[in-house]
This record gives sequence, C-alpha cells and structure tokens, in this order.
Amino acid sequence: MIRALVFDAYGTLFDVHSLTTLAEQLYPGRGAELSQRWRTKQLEYTWLRSLMKRYVDFNIVTREALRYAARALKLNMSFEEENALMDAYRTLTPFAEVPAALSALSNTHMLAILSNGHSNMLNAVVQHNGFDIYFPKRVLSVDAVQVFKPDPRVYQLAVDALQLTPQEIGFVSSNGWDAAGAKSFGFTVFWINRSNAPVELLGVSPDHVVTSLADVSTLIA
Amino acid sequence: MIRALVFDAYGTLFDVHSLTTLAEQLYPGRGAELSQRWRTKQLEYTWLRSLMKRYVDFNIVTREALRYAARALKLNMSFEEENALMDAYRTLTPFAEVPAALSALSNTHMLAILSNGHSNMLNAVVQHNGFDIYFPKRVLSVDAVQVFKPDPRVYQLAVDALQLTPQEIGFVSSNGWDAAGAKSFGFTVFWINRSNAPVELLGVSPDHVVTSLADVSTLIA
Repeated sequence: MIRALVFDAYGTLFDVHSLTTLAEQLYPGRGAELSQRWRTKQLEYTWLRSLMKRYVDFNIVTREALRYAARALKLNMSFEEENALMDAYRTLTPFAEVPAALSALSNTHMLAILSNGHSNMLNAVVQHNGFDIYFPKRVLSVDAVQVFKPDPRVYQLAVDALQLTPQEIGFVSSNGWDAAGAKSFGFTVFWINRSNAPVELLGVSPDHVVTSLADVSTLIA
Repeated sequence: MIRALVFDAYGTLFDVHSLTTLAEQLYPGRGAELSQRWRTKQLEYTWLRSLMKRYVDFNIVTREALRYAARALKLNMSFEEENALMDAYRTLTPFAEVPAALSALSNTHMLAILSNGHSNMLNAVVQHNGFDIYFPKRVLSVDAVQVFKPDPRVYQLAVDALQLTPQEIGFVSSNGWDAAGAKSFGFTVFWINRSNAPVELLGVSPDHVVTSLADVSTLIA
C-alpha cells in the first residue's frame, strides 16, 4: 500500500541540535540554550511569515531567528560567529540510526525529502552526509511554492513529484506539528517521537507513532 | 492622522498570566511553568491550524493547548481542574495601567478590540473588567473570518468595521509578532514592549515602541 517514503529533514534525519557543540564553544555555558531558542524562533518565523504572506527563503528565516535568539539571550554575536553557526546548518549530523535505516528502506521503497529548507542548504547537508544516493532528484523544497509547512501546498509537492496518491505516500517526521499537517493533507504518517512528547492536539493524529527511524523499516516490511 | 485605536486583547489589555495564581494553587510549584507552556502552545496552535486550514474557535484551541501543556509537564489534570483554568480566561486581570489609559484614550479616540478570542470569551473578560463602555459594538473576533492572526483577513476586519484606511488606525499590541502582522497589513503600529524583548525580525518594524499603554496616550496627544 505504501509505495514511497517522504522524509522531513531538520529534526527528523538531521539533528538540528548537533550544532550545540559549536554554540557552546562560542558561548560557554549558553550553547544548548541558544540552540533551543534558535530552533523555536526559526519555526515560529516560518509559520508567521507564511500567514503574513511574506515568504523569504529558509536561509534568511534561519539567520533572522539566530539573530533574534542571540539578542534575546543578550549574547554579543559577531557577524563571523553568526556565519559560522549558519554554516553549521550545512553539516548537521544525522540521528544515530538514520544511515542504516535509510540504506535498508532504499532497498524496498522510493525515498524523497520534503523540507522547509532552501535547496542549497538541503543539498549541502544531504551531500555532506553521503545521503544523495538515496534521494536522486527527489530532494523537494518548499521554495517551489513560496510558503512553509504545514500549508497543504507544500505536501502537494510530494504528490506531484512522485505521481502517487497521498495515501500511498508514507510521510515520516519527528516534528509533531509536521506529522499533523501531513496527516491533515492525507498522507499515511509515521511520527518519530524520539523525546516521548505528547501527541499534538490539532484535530488529526499520526497513523503510526515510533521512537526511531529503525522502527519504520520494521513496520513497513 | 490616527482616527481610531484598535487593541489586541490577550497579553495587551489582559494579562494571560494572571491565572498563574490559580494554576499554582492547583499544582504547587508548577503554576508559572504551566501558564507559560499553555500560552506558547495556544499561539502555536492558532498558527498551525490557520496554515492547515483547520480553524476551530479559540475556546477549543485554548483548551487543547492547556491539555497538551499539562501532559507535557506530566500533570494529572482532572476535567474539573481543566474547566476551572478555562473559566479563568473569562476573568483575566488587566495590566495595571490599562483602566486609566483606556479611560483617557476614550475621550479623544474611537476604540475597538481585535482579537483571536471567540466573542463569548472576549465579551466575558471585557464585561468582567467593566471595559464594555469603551468598546460599544466594537469587540471584533477573528471568528468572523475563521482564521487567526497574523493572516491579513483578520486585520481587514477592523478596516471594515471602522471604515477608515489602515494608516488611520493605530493598532496596539504587546505581542511582537502581532505588531509585525499589523504593520505588514498597513496599520500604524504601537508595540507595547513590557518585557524589554528584541523586536521580531519579520521584515517589518512597528512605528512606535513603548513600555506601557500609558505611553500611547502621551504619544497620540
């Protein structure tokens, strides 16, 4: 029934908090806090700009969120430090089980990425981790529709690219709100709940709740 | 030039954290944390449901956000406790300077409220505080357009109700993201920055940044 798997990138395949090490080097004792604030604000800005009809690409949103987070924490961030943290987004580390799970899933299913990221950020982090072999020409960016998740036009991009019905697409995300958006659109949804969080109460629920990407292999097989 | 003032309600006129006292009675030592988590999730859900095209009224969003926050904090919340906290939204306390400032501003300008709240919640808290005299028939709810702030259709409600141009309307909010949405729409915006927060980096800036509603009186006079 599931003929392809579509993955969220940031937070699902790649750990956005893997840059905490660099943040901690730059601001001793404040790295984790900066990383958390940055991520929270980054998501907020994607939602707000989408609603305000003021889309700008994810590079800009991410940089503005970083700048806001630094100001909110009263860190004196130089332009060089800002650039170093921005560059870290291109070399994020995957979650531990991801390389083996992608390898296994690629033997049985067509795989794609559907992300808020701009293509240049996405391709960089995918290639850095050697994952480009799993997603040939199937790294899809919201930039094509100039709005961020969970607007339904974003999820439609995967339907158009894969030429499958939404139900035939297994959508995999660790972001509970993204899982809700994908389910609302009509995908068969796997929510990777790595942090034992409550399910988001947004009127829809994921089809499957798992604790790691390895479990998706097992469920699908 | 400014011919009417339109106020955000929650966080601007009324302190959503005034229910911390009740939350603290119910969950000793956890009240402030619950109130913060609840508010953060409430806003998130308004943005997400708007983008997902799954509007439900603010009573429901607020209750679902409360339920999520309680689960995330591992509080065992009974239905009676949930109802007590929901009821507290109808008797929120205004910020200290608000009653006198509204009284002064009402002598010189037409005043209105434009809020995410459903009319029944809004009218309850407005009447509870004796503010209905300042906003006769001008308590506007997003429920009329079935989407939440900062979607431009929300701000258009004030233009339609007041029959003024956006620039002639002074929009007053303590929520930085709401101030950005209102400015993006075209209002003349007063951001009440009570907590000395950085300005939100969303491509637009408020016209005036003040620290309390009393300062708005001074600026306009």
